[in-house]
Amino acid sequence: MEMNDMVIVSVDDHISEPPDLFKNHLSGDLLASAPKLVQDVNGKDYWTYQGVNFPSVGLNAVVGKPFEEYGMEPSSMDQLRLGVYDVHARIDDMDVNGIAASMNFGSVFDFAGGRLHKAPDKKLATRHMQAYNDWHVDEWCAAYPGRFIPCGILPTYDMDATVAELKRLSDKGCYTVSINENPTVQGLPSIHNEYWKPFYKAINDLDMTIALHIGGGNPAPHASMETPIEAWITTMPMSISQGASDWLQLEALHEYPDMRIALSEGGIGWVPYFMERADFSNSRHKAWTNSRFPGAMKPSDTFKRHFLNCFIDDAFGLQNIDYIGEDMIAYECDYPHSDTLWPEVPERLWPTINHLTDVQIDKITHLNGMRFFRFDPFEHHKKEELTVGALRAKAAAKGVDTSVHSTGGERPVEEGVKRPITSGDLMAMFKRHEENFAKQKQSA
Amino acid sequence: MEMNDMVIVSVDDHISEPPDLFKNHLSGDLLASAPKLVQDVNGKDYWTYQGVNFPSVGLNAVVGKPFEEYGMEPSSMDQLRLGVYDVHARIDDMDVNGIAASMNFGSVFDFAGGRLHKAPDKKLATRHMQAYNDWHVDEWCAAYPGRFIPCGILPTYDMDATVAELKRLSDKGCYTVSINENPTVQGLPSIHNEYWKPFYKAINDLDMTIALHIGGGNPAPHASMETPIEAWITTMPMSISQGASDWLQLEALHEYPDMRIALSEGGIGWVPYFMERADFSNSRHKAWTNSRFPGAMKPSDTFKRHFLNCFIDDAFGLQNIDYIGEDMIAYECDYPHSDTLWPEVPERLWPTINHLTDVQIDKITHLNGMRFFRFDPFEHHKKEELTVGALRAKAAAKGVDTSVHSTGGERPVEEGVKRPITSGDLMAMFKRHEENFAKQKQSA
Repeated sequence: MEMNDMVIVSVDDHISEPPDLFKNHLSGDLLASAPKLVQDVNGKDYWTYQGVNFPSVGLNAVVGKPFEEYGMEPSSMDQLRLGVYDVHARIDDMDVNGIAASMNFGSVFDFAGGRLHKAPDKKLATRHMQAYNDWHVDEWCAAYPGRFIPCGILPTYDMDATVAELKRLSDKGCYTVSINENPTVQGLPSIHNEYWKPFYKAINDLDMTIALHIGGGNPAPHASMETPIEAWITTMPMSISQGASDWLQLEALHEYPDMRIALSEGGIGWVPYFMERADFSNSRHKAWTNSRFPGAMKPSDTFKRHFLNCFIDDAFGLQNIDYIGEDMIAYECDYPHSDTLWPEVPERLWPTINHLTDVQIDKITHLNGMRFFRFDPFEHHKKEELTVGALRAKAAAKGVDTSVHSTGGERPVEEGVKRPITSGDLMAMFKRHEENFAKQKQSA
Repeated sequence: MEMNDMVIVSVDDHISEPPDLFKNHLSGDLLASAPKLVQDVNGKDYWTYQGVNFPSVGLNAVVGKPFEEYGMEPSSMDQLRLGVYDVHARIDDMDVNGIAASMNFGSVFDFAGGRLHKAPDKKLATRHMQAYNDWHVDEWCAAYPGRFIPCGILPTYDMDATVAELKRLSDKGCYTVSINENPTVQGLPSIHNEYWKPFYKAINDLDMTIALHIGGGNPAPHASMETPIEAWITTMPMSISQGASDWLQLEALHEYPDMRIALSEGGIGWVPYFMERADFSNSRHKAWTNSRFPGAMKPSDTFKRHFLNCFIDDAFGLQNIDYIGEDMIAYECDYPHSDTLWPEVPERLWPTINHLTDVQIDKITHLNGMRFFRFDPFEHHKKEELTVGALRAKAAAKGVDTSVHSTGGERPVEEGVKRPITSGDLMAMFKRHEENFAKQKQSA
């Protein structure tokens, strides 16, 4: 195999939704009360919904900007690359990057629908959540069959509605749902509470997949406000290990041996250590903990069976796939966030993977993702149309522009500051955004 | 090399101090006001100091108990194995376990002197801290020259006193100090604040080593109160990655290229991923972060230069020492805590290390620890007297008893409970201890 022969399915990308996402899926009062993109007097866009405002429209959606502007938080749609919210431009950006298919997490309600939990009228929120899923599945994903893996969100504050939505999603061909890895941060019972039993049962009955994306659940703390921000960026993905450890203890994994859980954006290089440590801890403590793993079955056996490990750039992990399991590793692109290697994914991925067999490369680049998320791009496209080489040829013929464009934005600190930018600087910037926003609202 | 030829220096063990630790180092009012071990009406021991009480006398000091009692927190000295607090018995326990030398963290003021920060009279606390260090260096360590690496604590709430204590410790041959990995949790400025500049300078001038032990600084959160406790035990060591990431950004590392920092009990298997991720994050973000690593020097280069990685049981990490650096890995035993493999350390360590060269094994078992902590057991003992085989022969001649002894204690949950013991159960147990203790105090 050569670089251009890879078929790359990315199991984690993002959309910052376009302003008109609800218009084809709602009408009348429901459309009028749906989230709205509003521009303030300074030209900053924000979403407003049920009296709650979300100032960030393109959280970390910096693709296509110069590296110097990666710390400038996009605050209006016109600072975003078109592919961030326009599906046709997205396909171009996938083609030029050699990406055959992509699973996308949303933004307006956050990666896992967390913002729905802040809406006062939950029945209304559930209706808008459904419309959101309709847009995601029937409009965004359906625009290019075989190019997008559908990924829905859920009204987890209402278990009956959650189970109903799982069924509805499954019926329309969406087999993956994104939920918060730690629902206690949303005020819900923990994943070990019987509250979630109907959810696990429905996931199993419908043969669906749970995606847990870093960032919304267990905290990824900043060590101090004076800590250079690079420290936090470094440990952010690995912070999913807390969630992984929590979910590994789930009783439902034993009840439903085929349950599938994706650790989205968690990385893979730390996973062999984690599994070894889980086994060690179990061996030392199972005599008193009434362990879920009381006998010969080890936590690592269960981890290897249920959890998909997703990586962006992970050379060390890819040198150690035997420890993780070649069937439980999948590539992800993270477009349009700052970790994404767009448009150079093939050039960056290939050297970290080309020591593997062709079968292993196929598994990690697409077969594992296809199996885990029940998705088959080859129902719609011949394999040879979806290789890196074929997609890039298509993009070249179309002349897809990948040049870097400055879109400006607010610096986290004043120009001239020489010390490292800290966690505190970033916190202050977000606080400033919110305060300015509140002031403008008052004066409006 | 064979198993019995290893010379094992453990760079992380613990002492639960004996009640009379201050008697040879203080007199009069100072002795009278030193921490006191007191027994309550139920036979539970606790330390009391400056009006503050610390109910736990042997936190997790479960060595020698049956596994079934590992969840029963020792609450009195007579529940502890003698080697936990008696230096002569400790030497026996080291001999029978093939441990040539050991560095110990204390308990009465916590691993890193954190309890001193809670004392109202800080000047008095500083005096007692000095007496503590005198006991540790001049009594415990000095009892068996060449068998213990001294490790002091500091009055970090007073920088002048801290620098003075560093000098005093260095003069008495103690070259390592244990400090909190994240002093902001003690109400002190962060490690990046200029407050710490005299500390870093003194560490450098005196050629001393900083030890950061897991547990007292950055949080190792419990995902939920319903989460089985095994989840927390699993991720606890790796939680040091937050501290490692914070310290990796320290300006003083560039000012003092020989600064040495030990990540005590952090494990090693996750470290290659961590370094790779630090480099990746730096490469994506240095253009806007005013990074400490703006040019060709990578975070991983700095990490490899300054940080010692300490492991208890880490087969995967030991398969990957080339990624970490064979000079920056050291074995630790963690006696008497629940992770310790006493008295089977040689049998457990050897299979994870015997694929390495003799030189590499020597480095990891003792040479790295000796260099990093400026400690030379061979000034006092011939090498052949400190091998696993020689020490065990000595223990066998003496008849050191390693049989398991039940000492009982309070169960975290009532007998008969079948569900996994959770984080909430452990929290409730500790709260119950504190409440009982407070009640007894009132009635006394």
